[in-house]
Amino acid sequence: MTYCVGMKTQQGLVLASDSRSNAGHDQVNTCRKMFTFVIPGERAFVLLTSGSLSLSQSIITLLSRDFAAGMGLATAETFYDAVRCVGEYMRTVSDIDRPALERDSYSFNVHILVGGQIKGDEPQLYLVYPQGNPLRATRETPFLQIGEYKYGRPIIERGLVYSSTTLETAAKYALLSFDATMRSNVTVGPPIEMLLYRRDSLDFEEYRCFPADDPELLLIHRHWERLLRTAVEALPDISFDNGLPKPLP
Amino acid sequence: MTYCVGMKTQQGLVLASDSRSNAGHDQVNTCRKMFTFVIPGERAFVLLTSGSLSLSQSIITLLSRDFAAGMGLATAETFYDAVRCVGEYMRTVSDIDRPALERDSYSFNVHILVGGQIKGDEPQLYLVYPQGNPLRATRETPFLQIGEYKYGRPIIERGLVYSSTTLETAAKYALLSFDATMRSNVTVGPPIEMLLYRRDSLDFEEYRCFPADDPELLLIHRHWERLLRTAVEALPDISFDNGLPKPLP
Repeated sequence: MTYCVGMKTQQGLVLASDSRSNAGHDQVNTCRKMFTFVIPGERAFVLLTSGSLSLSQSIITLLSRDFAAGMGLATAETFYDAVRCVGEYMRTVSDIDRPALERDSYSFNVHILVGGQIKGDEPQLYLVYPQGNPLRATRETPFLQIGEYKYGRPIIERGLVYSSTTLETAAKYALLSFDATMRSNVTVGPPIEMLLYRRDSLDFEEYRCFPADDPELLLIHRHWERLLRTAVEALPDISFDNGLPKPLP
Repeated sequence: MTYCVGMKTQQGLVLASDSRSNAGHDQVNTCRKMFTFVIPGERAFVLLTSGSLSLSQSIITLLSRDFAAGMGLATAETFYDAVRCVGEYMRTVSDIDRPALERDSYSFNVHILVGGQIKGDEPQLYLVYPQGNPLRATRETPFLQIGEYKYGRPIIERGLVYSSTTLETAAKYALLSFDATMRSNVTVGPPIEMLLYRRDSLDFEEYRCFPADDPELLLIHRHWERLLRTAVEALPDISFDNGLPKPLP
């Protein structure tokens, strides 16, 4: 399994991914799911992948080869063109691998988050589906998730506001979202990679990798558990009626 | 969809269920998923159901008929016998309906939480699977969920401790767990029913139903959102390295 999240605020983007890969219960590995493509001062992209590692590796390999040759993500005119370009590489790999996969009842399963900015365009965040069609994060729904998304969703949904959340605070929400997910699902695991993108910087300059024993990660985990319990205790007590269930209102 | 949760602590049990039923997107109804069976001073059971409403209704109908006639849950000697008895009714309904369901590619889909106490036995909490086999909540894992369980799991997992959480505090965790779930999944909805069981009371005496516009529910929701944001702001800032992603450690 995998968990990746991207968040968009007025100040820029926060992107984070776990690094656990598993094929069955007894084949658990560490692998990167975060990939950057940068021409400083002109364009900066980060891609986060979930799904079959074999498929996402192929897509990233083809994207990287063409980017190095000045094609694909290197030349897309707008951010929308760039995510359409990512979708085209997904369709290329689909054409190569889907028939053989489906013959053995595997699905073509890969999702990609794409964040970043092209000079002259807004910072943007998209999710590209396995079919290659893109979905954009909006002011109203300023975050997108792929993989095991449910455990880590409530904390972000309650806190993140496009117009007012700083990137520093958004990064905390991202980390708490991973903390909740990793506690509930052992197939999502560290290291956690986190990347900040500041509006109009057209480069990535703030990156952090948290291995499992990272002191700051453990400190935040303990701190959070204590804060959360204190907050629950601080809520007013619920009042109860006497007796058995009554007919619903 | 449905969400139900049962929690067990040193002091007793907390059980809570939503009341939304949906068959497709355009057939949304309110229905109770919480059922009590009580012989005061001798035995008290509460059942929470998820899955096909048609199936859970049949099971509850047969259980109720026999309970009224002094059979089934009315005579089970131990709590384990009682949950085995619930499993037998599930198997009875499975025998009646499963072949016709499976012929049209529907699965036999029903889960039941059973909480309560029989005089001379401990308060207990079980989950009974569609196949009729029971799973018991333990000191180490003192809560069980059925239905849409993921969104509401992290808050309980962080807070609930068998030996030290009071029933009053456990009830707050249950309500926050529903708050998280209802915000993320529209097929889980109010009224929320909540029932407390105090160890050795052998009756239910504290019940509360929260409709959507319940003032206390809305107050706790707003209060919690504010407390949560304050807690996130209070966490130490994350420190970042300068630059692009590096090889994983």
